[in-house]
Amino acid sequence: MTQALKIALAGLGTVGGGVIRLLDANAELIARRAGRRIEIVAISARDRAKDRGVDLSRFEWVDDTGALAALDSVDVVVELIGGSDGPALTLARNSIAAGRAFVTANKAMIAHHGLELAEAAEAKGVALKYEAAVAGGIPVIKGLREGAAANELAHVYGILNGTCNYILSTMETEGRDFAEVLSEAQALGYAEADPSFDIDGVDAAHKLSILASLAFGTRIGFDAVAVDGIRNVIAADIAEAAALGFKVRLLGHAETLGDGLFQRVHPHLVPVSHPLAHVSGSLNAVVAEGNFVGRLLFQGRGAGDGPTASAVVADLIDIARGEYGPAFAMPVAALAQRPAADAGARRGRAYLRFTVEDKVGVLAEIAAAMRDSNVSIESLIQRGALDDGSVLVAIVTHESPERNIAQALERLEGSASIRGKPMLMHILD
Amino acid sequence: MTQALKIALAGLGTVGGGVIRLLDANAELIARRAGRRIEIVAISARDRAKDRGVDLSRFEWVDDTGALAALDSVDVVVELIGGSDGPALTLARNSIAAGRAFVTANKAMIAHHGLELAEAAEAKGVALKYEAAVAGGIPVIKGLREGAAANELAHVYGILNGTCNYILSTMETEGRDFAEVLSEAQALGYAEADPSFDIDGVDAAHKLSILASLAFGTRIGFDAVAVDGIRNVIAADIAEAAALGFKVRLLGHAETLGDGLFQRVHPHLVPVSHPLAHVSGSLNAVVAEGNFVGRLLFQGRGAGDGPTASAVVADLIDIARGEYGPAFAMPVAALAQRPAADAGARRGRAYLRFTVEDKVGVLAEIAAAMRDSNVSIESLIQRGALDDGSVLVAIVTHESPERNIAQALERLEGSASIRGKPMLMHILD
Repeated sequence: MTQALKIALAGLGTVGGGVIRLLDANAELIARRAGRRIEIVAISARDRAKDRGVDLSRFEWVDDTGALAALDSVDVVVELIGGSDGPALTLARNSIAAGRAFVTANKAMIAHHGLELAEAAEAKGVALKYEAAVAGGIPVIKGLREGAAANELAHVYGILNGTCNYILSTMETEGRDFAEVLSEAQALGYAEADPSFDIDGVDAAHKLSILASLAFGTRIGFDAVAVDGIRNVIAADIAEAAALGFKVRLLGHAETLGDGLFQRVHPHLVPVSHPLAHVSGSLNAVVAEGNFVGRLLFQGRGAGDGPTASAVVADLIDIARGEYGPAFAMPVAALAQRPAADAGARRGRAYLRFTVEDKVGVLAEIAAAMRDSNVSIESLIQRGALDDGSVLVAIVTHESPERNIAQALERLEGSASIRGKPMLMHILD
Repeated sequence: MTQALKIALAGLGTVGGGVIRLLDANAELIARRAGRRIEIVAISARDRAKDRGVDLSRFEWVDDTGALAALDSVDVVVELIGGSDGPALTLARNSIAAGRAFVTANKAMIAHHGLELAEAAEAKGVALKYEAAVAGGIPVIKGLREGAAANELAHVYGILNGTCNYILSTMETEGRDFAEVLSEAQALGYAEADPSFDIDGVDAAHKLSILASLAFGTRIGFDAVAVDGIRNVIAADIAEAAALGFKVRLLGHAETLGDGLFQRVHPHLVPVSHPLAHVSGSLNAVVAEGNFVGRLLFQGRGAGDGPTASAVVADLIDIARGEYGPAFAMPVAALAQRPAADAGARRGRAYLRFTVEDKVGVLAEIAAAMRDSNVSIESLIQRGALDDGSVLVAIVTHESPERNIAQALERLEGSASIRGKPMLMHILD
């Protein structure tokens, strides 16, 4: 057996602890599969005194995390600190510059700086790997980079944030409203104290931008992702969607559209017959549609110490085996630069929900706006007066260009009969 | 860009044609992803004259398929002939002996001779790859070999035969019996004229034995797979299963049990809440459960020219990139030899269906046999007289050792009240 692969681990939060436990628990099996042992030799974190439930005394403790990059005994630096910039990015740059392989679970850093790091890794001939950055334990980076590599992909989309899916699933099964379920999720530790990265879609957008690059052979374009979260989804949306044969899911969705690249994170309706309709709770799932393979689905646990550690160590095994190549499937120079696509040109069905005054003529006003924008209505539900005396109108449109739907909503802006902002969710068929 | 990867293709059936079409259609994209072009240079098949809808004149035609192994211009031999032995095996042996990489979609050959071929490939330092042999376009070989590699896996199971899943799904949605749906499937080309490999479970068993080796780090043991197909599933089984909250699926299922390895292909009941309950039609799906990652699901199209070609070319891309290693995740010498497990020791729920005389006391007889074998009944449905005057009794047991359930059935053997052979299906929870 060849020499052990020597690891320096930066960050000892839940995932860092998980990596240590995994390498302990499965050491023999991993050595058989990888052809060599994988051993942590050095660790670094902010607080040395904190009890993490694992014996750390056998590892070299390094106070200055940045110094891990310079340890000659180390083959791979594993970064589990987080944050798109700061110490994580410095460590990445310095580790790669020092000729060390680099493994990270940091979606924000890869979304913002992945191309720079990949170019540096290419120049040095070292591995840069980030399976854990998207969809936790699900090997979807590998699935796109390698498994589906023979295909021209038309779409990649999925449930990329477990917190949002947990909240939407709970709203669905319990008929409760967003704010209430969020508070409970926070109390249970399923949602962060500051949940905005999750529920406003930023976390999913980081992941989507990475998947899009792999799927389409394009440069990562995080800034071009249109992002909207789940704050405005109400219990009634989920109930009406169910009545119409749909479930509500926060999806990241990317596709090529003409010469452009379309990327959006948004709450969507998916038909109950779609595989994503059955992905509940905190699970993640990614769908890729290729011109030869058809529709592939990858599903599993998208977060947590165990699944994330599984992905980190899978990267280490690839490195131990010498089975790795360009981080984004091809050299960065070969990635295409595609402009952001005009979403208005996309065709699809949509769900619209209005809260309106309980008076004659409102429905006619909405219907006229739709007609004048050339949007035809597939189904419509009007529910009797709510507690505050208003009425809920839920509409599913026939397929039409998104710009027409946007136009219909513009026509209705300022209407005296409509209360608050209408809710628009696109339908993924 | 480095030199093209040069391919010899043996077998020009639907999959062979698919590989040629795929390499034509996606040539530029594949070259970007693989870092070099992938070019077919030589082909061979039984009938040169047959029109396959693709231009073959640009390739060197080789009459004797076996001669492909000796072509100096070739880097990789792709075998799409089929059959566990005969010309496919000879070609595999000779290609590897000649130092060429070898890619195949041949599950029977890998199940029977995969270890021998892998050892030869190791000795020569060449790639042996077979992604297309299991679950068609779904990258599940890669998912187990690499994606889940950090985990000790407890179970691997799935829907591995699209023909059976199509038949069961159609029986389910249309309430029709097996023989009728099979005839129709044959007429439509979804089932072979001789369907026994599919419907008797042999095809799924080939695939399961390969998955088990990858999942558990064990030598392939095809002969140890307990195999039963779907011929004895009747429409009423599917209806009663539905009434009890289950769907019927032909599953391949492998797990470690004590020191042994348990492998079985059998029709199962899966709860409607299980992801496999939503896998309908000709789709395939594989579930792997790891000690850190939890449950992973891979789903997609398990057969057909496009999906199979996608998997074959994914293997070629791995080879072009130089990202490959031992065929069964570790050197053959490192694979463990586990004896076949005693299924009797497994604990689980089961579904039993009896066709009985319409007279008093039959139910008591069945209940007594269950009691005397220490099997307790969770639910029971007795349906009024069928056309022939018999009555159908469907039972779901509580969890108990499989040997107890087998014993209960033995006790009932020869009963004057029970018509024909009872149906036993295990429940996968």
